Amino acid sequence: MDYYLVIDILGVIAFSISGVLSSMKKKMDPFGILIIAFVTSVGGGTLRDILIGFPVAWMRNLTYVHVILITTIFAIIFRKKLVFLRRSLFLFDTVGIGLYTVIGVEKGLSAEFPPIICIAIGTMTACFGGVLRDILCNEIPLLFRTKEIYATACMLGGITYFILLKFNLSSELVFTISGAVVIIVRSLAVYFDIRLPSVYLSHDHHP
Amino acid sequence: MDYYLVIDILGVIAFSISGVLSSMKKKMDPFGILIIAFVTSVGGGTLRDILIGFPVAWMRNLTYVHVILITTIFAIIFRKKLVFLRRSLFLFDTVGIGLYTVIGVEKGLSAEFPPIICIAIGTMTACFGGVLRDILCNEIPLLFRTKEIYATACMLGGITYFILLKFNLSSELVFTISGAVVIIVRSLAVYFDIRLPSVYLSHDHHP
Amino acid sequence: MDYYLVIDILGVIAFSISGVLSSMKKKMDPFGILIIAFVTSVGGGTLRDILIGFPVAWMRNLTYVHVILITTIFAIIFRKKLVFLRRSLFLFDTVGIGLYTVIGVEKGLSAEFPPIICIAIGTMTACFGGVLRDILCNEIPLLFRTKEIYATACMLGGITYFILLKFNLSSELVFTISGAVVIIVRSLAVYFDIRLPSVYLSHDHHP
Repeated sequence: MDYYLVIDILGVIAFSISGVLSSMKKKMDPFGILIIAFVTSVGGGTLRDILIGFPVAWMRNLTYVHVILITTIFAIIFRKKLVFLRRSLFLFDTVGIGLYTVIGVEKGLSAEFPPIICIAIGTMTACFGGVLRDILCNEIPLLFRTKEIYATACMLGGITYFILLKFNLSSELVFTISGAVVIIVRSLAVYFDIRLPSVYLSHDHHP
Repeated sequence: MDYYLVIDILGVIAFSISGVLSSMKKKMDPFGILIIAFVTSVGGGTLRDILIGFPVAWMRNLTYVHVILITTIFAIIFRKKLVFLRRSLFLFDTVGIGLYTVIGVEKGLSAEFPPIICIAIGTMTACFGGVLRDILCNEIPLLFRTKEIYATACMLGGITYFILLKFNLSSELVFTISGAVVIIVRSLAVYFDIRLPSVYLSHDHHP
Repeated sequence: MDYYLVIDILGVIAFSISGVLSSMKKKMDPFGILIIAFVTSVGGGTLRDILIGFPVAWMRNLTYVHVILITTIFAIIFRKKLVFLRRSLFLFDTVGIGLYTVIGVEKGLSAEFPPIICIAIGTMTACFGGVLRDILCNEIPLLFRTKEIYATACMLGGITYFILLKFNLSSELVFTISGAVVIIVRSLAVYFDIRLPSVYLSHDHHP
């Protein structure tokens, strides 16, 4: 297995666990949980591959499906351990968007799209699985719920990637730093409760 | 018309009627009803064809659009008859997922995907149209609402298909038995109120 | 830039502004607003291109992304001016569906689909971005909310297009009249509160 696939699989594991945690809150049965874990982990990459015009990754490589199955079974069995990690949904979701952002950017680059499109692809790859998870679990999507810095962190990670590309760094280093930027920016923003100012029409206050 | 297309058309009819019944509950106008019937019947197949990389079936063969139009008009005119059938939405939705599961599995096979991917494709083909119908009608998707055995029935039908393939049966027989498994499993589960146990974190009870 | 791209860009501008107006109501931050503006303006065309099997337009031509960025920044800065236009969301949404309906019909024709499929493509191109916008902003989709004439106006515009094609008119004239039909039909319907009669099962009144 190459470095690239390893990272992809780590993202699949992180998002599968986030899917299991979300669906257990809704008291789903094991098959329902499996479906949510599956959709959460492959949703973003599926959108990415369809938009670019690539064959859909999880359909061509059974590793994805096996990893999702095993992760889901483990996450269900060890669910009480998972919950000892405070904010575990936050943790796995954040690692997931960090990894998927950079994978999306690199897939866009490999199809020779310009940087701004690659950043858009990376952001969508990262956010779409979680949006599907939240819609299917009847939650307001995380992306829009908390006014957290979420997609913004992905965009910053994508921008970091293209800045680092200008320096003479190994591709693993560029990948790792950009993914870490997403994770750190989102974590710091949540920890220090940093939000961007919201924009609205003043008369909306008195409708 | 070949056997294959006939089955596909039966699925389109079943899902169109389920779309008409759902949208009439929301007191939509005839064009709104037509759109819901259309989305419900072609949604799953569209997702399937896009994932596999096939041309989208309903765009290449006008039979689909004509069948949806005629079914919708008939279902609207004879809506009072439809309602005499108790649980008619359940009936048509269940026949629809039975037929679409096996069609999805076979399309996956024809593109030479391995069995587990074919079962995933079949389950998605069966469930996606109904999920769209429920989202557009502002219902919690059936798939997640009632904790019924729903996607699980589709997966069992898909597994049956690959078990039967090992025996020396005609393709029509394999198709028919697998589709029947989906319909019977879901019907029995609803009739006897059988559910799989739900999995949750115990402290979620006292949030 | 050719006539065709100009019209497409006008549609992008109209839908971007409608996305900005919707998301400002939800007090999103600037990046959230940008994402909603982006999804609203490219959603319909993305679905259209994927269904037809074309490369996705906004990924191949940076003009789209630049126009969305600039429009969003302008719309945020001049948001107080926008609100002086009464019903400005209605206005921009209506212009958007008018333009996108005809663009969708023409893209369908260029791929040699029959008229009824082209009308379906046009209607989807027009409606899908707004449906995504409303789902992401947690509104009941406009398409289904008000029982307004909405998708119906798009279908009438598409039908007009194919009637006009039979006469010896310039393609610009066919385009302009068909788009105007969508805008005028929807505007008149809202102004005079015209609705199509809804269809329902009488016993649904007493559930």
